Amino acid sequence: MSRQELTINLGERSYPIHIGADILAPGSLSDYLADRKVLLVTNSTVAPLYLEQGIAAIGHEQYETLILADGEQYKNHQTWMSILNKLVEMRADRNCCLLALGGGVIGDMTGFAAAAYMRGVDFVQVPTTLLAQVDASVGGKTGINHPQGKNLIGAFHQPQAVIIDTNTLNTLPDREYRAGLAEVVKYGLIIDPEFFDWLIAHTDALNNRDVEIVQYAIYRSCEIKAEIVAADEREGGVRALLNLGHTFAHAIETATKYTRYLHGEAVAIGMYLAAVYSEDSSLSTEKIAAKSETLMKNLGLETRLPVDLDVNQLVDLMKLDKKVINGRLRLIVMESIGKAFIQDDAIPQQVAESMMSDRAQQHS
Amino acid sequence: MSRQELTINLGERSYPIHIGADILAPGSLSDYLADRKVLLVTNSTVAPLYLEQGIAAIGHEQYETLILADGEQYKNHQTWMSILNKLVEMRADRNCCLLALGGGVIGDMTGFAAAAYMRGVDFVQVPTTLLAQVDASVGGKTGINHPQGKNLIGAFHQPQAVIIDTNTLNTLPDREYRAGLAEVVKYGLIIDPEFFDWLIAHTDALNNRDVEIVQYAIYRSCEIKAEIVAADEREGGVRALLNLGHTFAHAIETATKYTRYLHGEAVAIGMYLAAVYSEDSSLSTEKIAAKSETLMKNLGLETRLPVDLDVNQLVDLMKLDKKVINGRLRLIVMESIGKAFIQDDAIPQQVAESMMSDRAQQHS
Repeated sequence: MSRQELTINLGERSYPIHIGADILAPGSLSDYLADRKVLLVTNSTVAPLYLEQGIAAIGHEQYETLILADGEQYKNHQTWMSILNKLVEMRADRNCCLLALGGGVIGDMTGFAAAAYMRGVDFVQVPTTLLAQVDASVGGKTGINHPQGKNLIGAFHQPQAVIIDTNTLNTLPDREYRAGLAEVVKYGLIIDPEFFDWLIAHTDALNNRDVEIVQYAIYRSCEIKAEIVAADEREGGVRALLNLGHTFAHAIETATKYTRYLHGEAVAIGMYLAAVYSEDSSLSTEKIAAKSETLMKNLGLETRLPVDLDVNQLVDLMKLDKKVINGRLRLIVMESIGKAFIQDDAIPQQVAESMMSDRAQQHS
Repeated sequence: MSRQELTINLGERSYPIHIGADILAPGSLSDYLADRKVLLVTNSTVAPLYLEQGIAAIGHEQYETLILADGEQYKNHQTWMSILNKLVEMRADRNCCLLALGGGVIGDMTGFAAAAYMRGVDFVQVPTTLLAQVDASVGGKTGINHPQGKNLIGAFHQPQAVIIDTNTLNTLPDREYRAGLAEVVKYGLIIDPEFFDWLIAHTDALNNRDVEIVQYAIYRSCEIKAEIVAADEREGGVRALLNLGHTFAHAIETATKYTRYLHGEAVAIGMYLAAVYSEDSSLSTEKIAAKSETLMKNLGLETRLPVDLDVNQLVDLMKLDKKVINGRLRLIVMESIGKAFIQDDAIPQQVAESMMSDRAQQHS
């Protein structure tokens, strides 16, 4: 499949997404990086695989590299400060550009460092995980975690470009690949029933990482996200749909200290719980929980909440999520497959009851 | 003098500046704070004087307070994190509002916490120093210092409103008051020769803190800043003029570890040095250094660089300032009183020579 391009339409903050195999070629980033100091930020897992290729793509010698520890548990203000310290040390000026080479954690932290350094400098995203390619690298949400909650500190800061070289998926561990598929499923669930059906029809090809099928899944995911972000950059409305399952997921990740689940894995469970809650609250007119669970299970994703997690603690954590206004939970719920909407006033107790009742049925 | 109001015109981010005596009255902030959790941030100097009044102005009971240590040396990422921790602890949601009660340091840090918490929540500025009233609280520049440079980390984040109760100046120490006057002088120097002459004509009244004269000085300063910020919110052009003297000043403050000079005091020296450099480089057609020095001295401000500061070290620090592009210094220089412009390619060595030559003349 040939190279594809999309644009995120945000007026003067518009930028392109390039998708294809072999596009992270030598000098390929010089359109964005010529004549400016570059700080390439990556982690200890990605560096042995792609650092050399990333450096070659810069196309000049005015760069430095920073290799961070790998893992969501390092997405904190200490690591973020280490990026800023490096920028100061290399005397980067306002004309500098950061280059995020890695998954969602690298992209989020590098983006937030770019947002804050000198009140905002440029950055380019080169996502190397499926999750970052279909979600995290697109749309300008940047940030770090607080011990009490995920992404509680951050900024909206759009990149100059997103470069998705699908070859980087060749080295992606199976577990991370499947976690990325959870966010792909999300686009079907929230807004595109045809894409959901396409995913069902191409489950085997996706599991086999068929190159053309995977590229289409990425392209369509980015296309949907681009439309949503262009319509609502700062999440005043429709963009909130992208948070389907995420309020549950953030609570699960926080309760397990970001070490037990990959983000996409937690999102899979969260989307299932959102579907169950939608049915229990009679918001949904069809059996969305079973349908979404079947697709996700066939893509190798767990959907059920483990028994050792305390439902009341999770709901308590959900109340601290950004998607809370005046004590009521703001949840993304589903009317049907491909039709999500915002419920602004979910009652925490009802959410807890839905989670407990699903767990009880599992074990009855 | 009666209450005055100005508007910063920034489209959907427009906001009012209210100026007058007694305007921080009970319930006076309820237009901005009703039905939302409020975190009032102040410092240990301001709290004994105005915390009670600030709380009464909120007009409801859904608030918490955070009292920080006083001083530019605390404008760092640890103190900033303590504001964010407090927001998490009080479970503030996206609808919350921060209230900055204090000088420029409190406003800058509180604003940057508001910018970053949940990727941006609202804040209101209640500046209690002359410097914050005429400059720091208006225009949306927020941030913290890095050990290697002032305001290196931050965001553009506009407040919901700026409330300038001129009564707060009654308790302002003489040194802080004079430091604020330096920024007032700046507006005359960069863009308004009539205002510069007005300041000369009203020097005695300003020194005596005549209520009406001081309020006019604040009003006119805010009016000029409002025009400049509306024309160039993110400092792509004309807004840079507001940095007259600031590249010198930031270096002086960094070299003296933020403890020896108040910001306005460093700016006074910096503006004088900018005037001297403008003359030495034949950019200026009149004796601007002597004129600006006379006014500043009459307002109780020092203008000369102390002999114990190393000029080469200062110029080295200036190269790290945000106003540097590709190694050349971006300085604000003056053609005449009231007519500043940007020099994008100042040669560091020439700047150093101008500083050394002025010092030599002082001691000859």
